Amino acid sequence: MPTRSTIMDANSFRAAHADSLDEVTRELTAKREALLGASYRLFYRNPVHVVRGESAYVWDADGRKYLDVYNNVPSVGHAHPAVVAAVSAQMARLNTHTRYLHGAVLAYAEDLLSTLPDELDQIMFMCTGSEANDLAIRVARAYTGGQGIILTSEAYHGNTELTSAHSPALGSGQHLDASARLVAPPDAYRADWAAEGSVGVWFAARLQEQIDAMREDGIAFAGLLIDSVFSSDGVFTGEPGLLAAAVDVVHRNSGVVIADEVQPGFARTGDAFWGFARHGVVPDIVTMGKPMGNGMPISGMAARREVLEAFSLTIPYFNTFGGNPVSIAAAQAVLDTIRAEGLQERARVVGAELRAALAPLADRYEVIGDVRGAGQFTGLELVSSRVTKAPATALSLDVIEGMRERGVLTSVAGPGGNILKLRPTLAFRSSDIDWLVGAFEDALAEAL
Amino acid sequence: MPTRSTIMDANSFRAAHADSLDEVTRELTAKREALLGASYRLFYRNPVHVVRGESAYVWDADGRKYLDVYNNVPSVGHAHPAVVAAVSAQMARLNTHTRYLHGAVLAYAEDLLSTLPDELDQIMFMCTGSEANDLAIRVARAYTGGQGIILTSEAYHGNTELTSAHSPALGSGQHLDASARLVAPPDAYRADWAAEGSVGVWFAARLQEQIDAMREDGIAFAGLLIDSVFSSDGVFTGEPGLLAAAVDVVHRNSGVVIADEVQPGFARTGDAFWGFARHGVVPDIVTMGKPMGNGMPISGMAARREVLEAFSLTIPYFNTFGGNPVSIAAAQAVLDTIRAEGLQERARVVGAELRAALAPLADRYEVIGDVRGAGQFTGLELVSSRVTKAPATALSLDVIEGMRERGVLTSVAGPGGNILKLRPTLAFRSSDIDWLVGAFEDALAEAL
Repeated sequence: MPTRSTIMDANSFRAAHADSLDEVTRELTAKREALLGASYRLFYRNPVHVVRGESAYVWDADGRKYLDVYNNVPSVGHAHPAVVAAVSAQMARLNTHTRYLHGAVLAYAEDLLSTLPDELDQIMFMCTGSEANDLAIRVARAYTGGQGIILTSEAYHGNTELTSAHSPALGSGQHLDASARLVAPPDAYRADWAAEGSVGVWFAARLQEQIDAMREDGIAFAGLLIDSVFSSDGVFTGEPGLLAAAVDVVHRNSGVVIADEVQPGFARTGDAFWGFARHGVVPDIVTMGKPMGNGMPISGMAARREVLEAFSLTIPYFNTFGGNPVSIAAAQAVLDTIRAEGLQERARVVGAELRAALAPLADRYEVIGDVRGAGQFTGLELVSSRVTKAPATALSLDVIEGMRERGVLTSVAGPGGNILKLRPTLAFRSSDIDWLVGAFEDALAEAL
Repeated sequence: MPTRSTIMDANSFRAAHADSLDEVTRELTAKREALLGASYRLFYRNPVHVVRGESAYVWDADGRKYLDVYNNVPSVGHAHPAVVAAVSAQMARLNTHTRYLHGAVLAYAEDLLSTLPDELDQIMFMCTGSEANDLAIRVARAYTGGQGIILTSEAYHGNTELTSAHSPALGSGQHLDASARLVAPPDAYRADWAAEGSVGVWFAARLQEQIDAMREDGIAFAGLLIDSVFSSDGVFTGEPGLLAAAVDVVHRNSGVVIADEVQPGFARTGDAFWGFARHGVVPDIVTMGKPMGNGMPISGMAARREVLEAFSLTIPYFNTFGGNPVSIAAAQAVLDTIRAEGLQERARVVGAELRAALAPLADRYEVIGDVRGAGQFTGLELVSSRVTKAPATALSLDVIEGMRERGVLTSVAGPGGNILKLRPTLAFRSSDIDWLVGAFEDALAEAL
């Protein structure tokens, strides 16, 4: 199995690919390498030069149309006119910070809190999911007095020093926080959960083991930081209710649950507006980011007042751009659009249709090990053997490259880099399914 | 002298002020308290409810016009039409991340790097100054192999766990990083620098003392993180060249210089496009934020390729919203506008005019201890005695409240909270000086 850091860059462009590029693309990649440096990685052996987006699609510089099955940031669709109009109007009027009174941030806060359980009664705004998770860990530590955070084994929670140290997906070059511990995700396909009766109970038992191990090492438990669709671990949406036992374990051990909703939030799973809500649980802190402003940099952290105060009354916190009227206008337009266009219900229906369309392929292709998902988030696992379930890593890469050549943009996840992460914009419709499934089957047939 | 945490909230609204508010304002403040929680602080005993901005001015909900002498974020002026047009057009076209090719981010990177010394040849984009400084500290540590960062004693560098632990201005509730050390700023007004011949040499000597002390504690020196106008310390713009000796000390001790340009960057000081450039020094890392996108959340970190690679080749870093086409469109429009409107030259001229207009007041008011600055960044220090230089803390607060009542928005800085921080948008013109100086003098006369 490849090392973690390989997986993070699984489908990256590399210098060795440059020879096969056309001249314009080669020049652009060379310029990037010179100006932006080594951290910047492009997707694909033949990078895509995007210039325009609309709804579920993007177009490249040559006018070629692509179906976007990767980007959850332009959540209600690329260049959604409602978001464009809201941002343009507010920018022309005022953009300032939250140390002056402004009505829009309060109206949005009230609206957003109405989508969350009553227990989560306060919200703060930042600019990125990393900032939200960085703050959430600090808040959890301040409230519990503990330090130790438990994470799933391939989790990614952000790019700051603190969140990177809580992101095992970044690989062995990045240190893990000394007080953090890892737990395997509730992988119903691979985990040996039969003895426990359900993967949810199995996961809760593994979690308790890590809490116990942490305590034996003299680290006080602060909480569980979790993405309820386990996006980076390999997309384990699971049955509704799956996380209930784990949340009980956290609370019985006096920890807090931080639900990182950067991936599942804002209607994506179809079953609920928030990923955790699919499981009927109530976290103590909820962080949100990517899809919140359709590309406008805005993020948020909701919490119980009591949990938040332990931090807020001790340490000053101010985020200059956080909650500014323009970001809020974008976020409000996203929330309004999700409702007006029924995007949660569409996610539920279209996601199920997609998985129903993919299911018959498993009869024809032995390499399809599992198809799973919730709403507009589907994981499709390719294995070299259905018995050993060994990840078909190289094949998976070839498939996403082949899909890119067929105009469908997607990527892979999981420690084996063999789980296709089908995560379109919420603008993705039933009528887009044929293109996606056709491109997948053609690419797979070609790659086999 | 008040504690640090008091200073951070010096001119905050407090619940005790609520009785004197009109009904609408009282309702909004109560709603904020309920929804947003304790970290959110409003400016002023009578908070300003802003609804519109244009050029150097904002308007409140009652239609009252204010002169904005506080906000450096709307750097080229509130709701600048060039920025609004650029963002609106790009949003309607495409907003996505840097893992696809896009020409605008490269054109902007090239343009921005052309304003920096040749040694700084690579740039990365984030969303906030906090993210830029968080990354810069990590890069400095990776490159030097050291841990210890030296900061000025009232510095503020961000709100993440790492940058908060490098922000002594946050006060005693926030821990300082165990490897960090503080140095007094080059305060020509108060420091006892005569023996060293210049405050710059005095500052360099104090810096060497801290590096030595750090080493004695077994901490390897990583670098100096510094705002070259010492905004949070009390606005010590100093004579050009002031920082040369300090930068030499850092390099002789094998550390890196991180110039935090969130405050002085983007033409504000008038003398140069970057604050460090006023002093003829070349930092190893430059971070930038607030004014970069005129309110659009964008930040950046420029560095020497060699310095950056130590980090980039080891640890994956990706910033979802960083360098997206919309943020870049805003940043490019800001850079273009600074040039097209000659805002650097205007900052130089108008800033000097403002200080010339304030100077005669020092003859009439014994409490004016010092007036200093560069370009559109002026510090005006109020003291209870010119001999003891004791900070006139309460008076300063009354003055900024009095100025607010006269429609001029500003704030205070420094450990004594007695330094008026006059930091208008770059749209501030000569014709605005009378309003500002008149409001200050009236407020001062009233408060005395």
